[in-house]
Amino acid sequence: NQLASRKFRSFLSNSGRSMASKTQVGFIGLGNMGKPMAKNLLKHGYPVIATDVFPESCKELQELGAQIVDNPAEVADQADRVVTMLPSSPNVIEVYTGPNGILKKVKKGSLLIDSSTIDPAVSKEMAVAAEKMGAVFMDAPVSGGVGAASSGKLTFMVGGVEEEFTAAQELLTCMGANVVYCGAVGTGQAAKICNNMLLAIGMIGTSETMNLGIRLGLDPKLLAKILNMSSGRCWSSDTYNPVPGVMEGVPSGNNYQGGFGTQLMAKDLGLAQTTATNTKTPVPLGSLAHQIYRMMCARGYSGKDFSSVFQFLQGA
Amino acid sequence: NQLASRKFRSFLSNSGRSMASKTQVGFIGLGNMGKPMAKNLLKHGYPVIATDVFPESCKELQELGAQIVDNPAEVADQADRVVTMLPSSPNVIEVYTGPNGILKKVKKGSLLIDSSTIDPAVSKEMAVAAEKMGAVFMDAPVSGGVGAASSGKLTFMVGGVEEEFTAAQELLTCMGANVVYCGAVGTGQAAKICNNMLLAIGMIGTSETMNLGIRLGLDPKLLAKILNMSSGRCWSSDTYNPVPGVMEGVPSGNNYQGGFGTQLMAKDLGLAQTTATNTKTPVPLGSLAHQIYRMMCARGYSGKDFSSVFQFLQGA
Amino acid sequence: NQLASRKFRSFLSNSGRSMASKTQVGFIGLGNMGKPMAKNLLKHGYPVIATDVFPESCKELQELGAQIVDNPAEVADQADRVVTMLPSSPNVIEVYTGPNGILKKVKKGSLLIDSSTIDPAVSKEMAVAAEKMGAVFMDAPVSGGVGAASSGKLTFMVGGVEEEFTAAQELLTCMGANVVYCGAVGTGQAAKICNNMLLAIGMIGTSETMNLGIRLGLDPKLLAKILNMSSGRCWSSDTYNPVPGVMEGVPSGNNYQGGFGTQLMAKDLGLAQTTATNTKTPVPLGSLAHQIYRMMCARGYSGKDFSSVFQFLQGA
Amino acid sequence: NQLASRKFRSFLSNSGRSMASKTQVGFIGLGNMGKPMAKNLLKHGYPVIATDVFPESCKELQELGAQIVDNPAEVADQADRVVTMLPSSPNVIEVYTGPNGILKKVKKGSLLIDSSTIDPAVSKEMAVAAEKMGAVFMDAPVSGGVGAASSGKLTFMVGGVEEEFTAAQELLTCMGANVVYCGAVGTGQAAKICNNMLLAIGMIGTSETMNLGIRLGLDPKLLAKILNMSSGRCWSSDTYNPVPGVMEGVPSGNNYQGGFGTQLMAKDLGLAQTTATNTKTPVPLGSLAHQIYRMMCARGYSGKDFSSVFQFLQGA
Repeated sequence: NQLASRKFRSFLSNSGRSMASKTQVGFIGLGNMGKPMAKNLLKHGYPVIATDVFPESCKELQELGAQIVDNPAEVADQADRVVTMLPSSPNVIEVYTGPNGILKKVKKGSLLIDSSTIDPAVSKEMAVAAEKMGAVFMDAPVSGGVGAASSGKLTFMVGGVEEEFTAAQELLTCMGANVVYCGAVGTGQAAKICNNMLLAIGMIGTSETMNLGIRLGLDPKLLAKILNMSSGRCWSSDTYNPVPGVMEGVPSGNNYQGGFGTQLMAKDLGLAQTTATNTKTPVPLGSLAHQIYRMMCARGYSGKDFSSVFQFLQGA
Repeated sequence: NQLASRKFRSFLSNSGRSMASKTQVGFIGLGNMGKPMAKNLLKHGYPVIATDVFPESCKELQELGAQIVDNPAEVADQADRVVTMLPSSPNVIEVYTGPNGILKKVKKGSLLIDSSTIDPAVSKEMAVAAEKMGAVFMDAPVSGGVGAASSGKLTFMVGGVEEEFTAAQELLTCMGANVVYCGAVGTGQAAKICNNMLLAIGMIGTSETMNLGIRLGLDPKLLAKILNMSSGRCWSSDTYNPVPGVMEGVPSGNNYQGGFGTQLMAKDLGLAQTTATNTKTPVPLGSLAHQIYRMMCARGYSGKDFSSVFQFLQGA
Repeated sequence: NQLASRKFRSFLSNSGRSMASKTQVGFIGLGNMGKPMAKNLLKHGYPVIATDVFPESCKELQELGAQIVDNPAEVADQADRVVTMLPSSPNVIEVYTGPNGILKKVKKGSLLIDSSTIDPAVSKEMAVAAEKMGAVFMDAPVSGGVGAASSGKLTFMVGGVEEEFTAAQELLTCMGANVVYCGAVGTGQAAKICNNMLLAIGMIGTSETMNLGIRLGLDPKLLAKILNMSSGRCWSSDTYNPVPGVMEGVPSGNNYQGGFGTQLMAKDLGLAQTTATNTKTPVPLGSLAHQIYRMMCARGYSGKDFSSVFQFLQGA
Repeated sequence: NQLASRKFRSFLSNSGRSMASKTQVGFIGLGNMGKPMAKNLLKHGYPVIATDVFPESCKELQELGAQIVDNPAEVADQADRVVTMLPSSPNVIEVYTGPNGILKKVKKGSLLIDSSTIDPAVSKEMAVAAEKMGAVFMDAPVSGGVGAASSGKLTFMVGGVEEEFTAAQELLTCMGANVVYCGAVGTGQAAKICNNMLLAIGMIGTSETMNLGIRLGLDPKLLAKILNMSSGRCWSSDTYNPVPGVMEGVPSGNNYQGGFGTQLMAKDLGLAQTTATNTKTPVPLGSLAHQIYRMMCARGYSGKDFSSVFQFLQGA
């Protein structure tokens, strides 16, 4: 039956994969995030076989010793562990189930780890499709930006069959400092989306509050200090304060350059909105946060760090 | 000139008041918060002279040794330091400037400390009115509820002339664990209002996020843990989580009894809204938070802790 | 080439279909709306061949002379014009592209009209799938409820190839009073979704405004009259006023029974939200309207008319 | 008793005033709106005695025959009917109750009509203060802009004692096409504020909807036509459409010049917010509309017509 076959396959794949753990690892999607992640796999001694739609993205990795192939199917043909890092749901669908997709040539027992941030419903579809081919799919989106990707300090939130978590962890710990098991397939995405929705709410809320306090005559550093010792405290007030001059080493001190772009936050809030709509969950502040980041994109803030909402609200 | 007279008065009052620091202290407003605060002054050895519109509120304090008089003017006639703790702006206006108000009989050089949570514009008006009578007015609203008032663990946010802060601190430390100087008159209120606005935003945001995550299949305790180690972290997620079963010792574990009532939060958000409107400051999330707490009051949640917004959004 | 073949097919189908216009018409989806729509086709002399997942829904139509078959494929096998009226996007996908779906047996040149209210992106997918089989797909969602469906007074908003509009109109005029051509496939849905989003905003806005005015001492009938002669005028204020006693013959006069259910409005606002998210369009009020109807569903208002938002906001 | 004295005074004032109806009328506040209103009184043969804080504002009226005096008290000293048209609540308080205010020299039985748009609570305070001096205060805010003021086509919404309405009407019909009695003092303001709140909601809603529809492929003129024949219809869609090219003779066709400024709408929404806060009325969309207009002011839209929210949301 299905359970037996799953356990058997799990046994096979686990033993197979763990016996030769430094065999090739596939990597698909060599963008701003994917490239440093793949490099960290190389650094840890894994032979990497990679592909990307932009050939130029592959060069740097090739020079570091990675093997470059034409398409995802070729990657899956040669590696029984594959990591994907792609911009959005349609890319993931294409890379897994398209004409040259992973599932066209995936080996039985392969472990497929998707670190893209996408709709958890799509993750579930991919898991079903992978299972039909005898492969295991896990979602493992990250928190932390390009810096954390380079230094191997990402946090991975992992959804999927629990008995495969150890196998995934082996690879993910090469690229991240924290690897958290969240539950069934899709819950990694859910955790990521939930965190970022609350982050956006906290950031806009902190920006409104700081702006109001300043207009009421409070010194911004003092206000931040008071909030941070009180019940208004949040990550955006105590770690990533959006008001220029309150903290050092954050984008607000650098004209909102670097950091996590407004457009990316708008994308994640779009995912939160979609999952909330699909599950009929009321998210009034999350929804308004989404709209505010959309308005910012419409007003020229796409490329600035998402803490620039302070500037957007303050006027100038 | 005015500066000289202010300094002279300041000199007089400081020396006069500090020389005999355990002279009578006036206390006006013996409600849920005021009564335990006044008791703490008594415990610290201050003779208290008090009044309240409800005679029955005075009894308990009288039995503990306080002197009870008829009205605020009588209090001010006998004590040169007066603390007020009242429900809202109109009460403060009445108690200070009404026919039997403090300012009718206030002594020159008196220190008047208002711990009510009110519109900072009213605090400024009271300060101007007090100054005309040669008295000093400071706003010193508190954070912390009835429990903190009883145990003397309140936080005071103090606005007013800086050279009087030490004198205020002497009394406030009898009633609170933290006494923070915020700046000119009204900035104590501003800090309080700002904190509570961000608190409300964080609480509703946390409730939406937890509700969404649960519907997406995440275990609530695990989700809280993930948020608290990530950028979604806030006081409402890590200290006062609104989801029953996630934490112990918070109102969500006790059917949202006790804590900080929805109606009180709605009141504070109304103050935040009013100050934002008057200063033309956009506060989109703060404004929506206000509306949500108003809707909750309209749907029967007035008396429940403000974390019951989780229940309101979740449906049942 | 494709254009030539399209024109040729169009020529064939038009002549073929119009020559024998009272040949069988297929109808799939015999719910609250679909059943009276199908009856109106029968009344106008069209032989109807129908199916529904619930056999009991078919009985009444069978007694009126309709032929009942097992599944959508059978309908398409016998009729070259098919109307579908289904609850949501997944149903439409199943009925068109599922194992027993229309496209399994559709005849070349058939005209497929979908009157469901769904995501316009799904309409476009169905149109592409239909075109591959040589058939023409049009979206034609309706406005007007069960009453309008029974009396043949629906409004159809039609999207699709313009040269097929006349053929669609022939059938739709049997079921509706207005048939409006909106543009390419999906624009019928777009028009429907846009209208309902603005409707929801107007209804909540009218409810807030009436509630505020009443609390400020205005007579509700007088306030409605003033709004309706001023720039606050909208359909919800002048045709469907949500305040009991202001108008006759509307759900507010009948404890919000009948009319357009809150749950259905929440569904349409979900579609609006999804299309807005997908097109990165900021819709702050539409988004908040969606959230308010979701909160109402969570608080027991699902089955009441959507004008009951007045009651929800007013408290009771 | 009070009722008798009120009736007696009413009798006196009515007979006194109506017997000599073309005696002097006072006018205070000669801004963009006040000047053309005062001119219309002159045109109808009323001697006008006027004042304004800006002497230059008085010149034009003086040349047309009005008598100019130094301050509101002088106006009230010479005229027993006075109209005021001022920017905001503090101005009204100053003009009525300040050191040179109307009430310093008002005659018993005088009729004081305030056409400013202010907080209805302030109107009530002014009415109480006027009554103490034996005078009658009515609030009569207007709808319609500078154009309507010039052509005498304003709508007046009047609150106050009903038996004085006829006397007020005599003057107001010289300046407006509609004079509507709304109820007790303050209800004129309430009606104005309610209308403008719903207007703002309708305008933003129409802008979001049109923007969404256009992105979904609908022609804007066609979409407007569909909305206007459906339940999405509102004044902003059918009379003042915010999308350039849809209608002629509206600000959207003229780069949002002229019309009703975003800053003025933000002010009126601030009043709506304040009255809603004070009466604990939830106004979620009204509140968000206020925030959106505040954000627009912060982003440089203050001087553009309020329909420019379409441009703000659309991006450019």
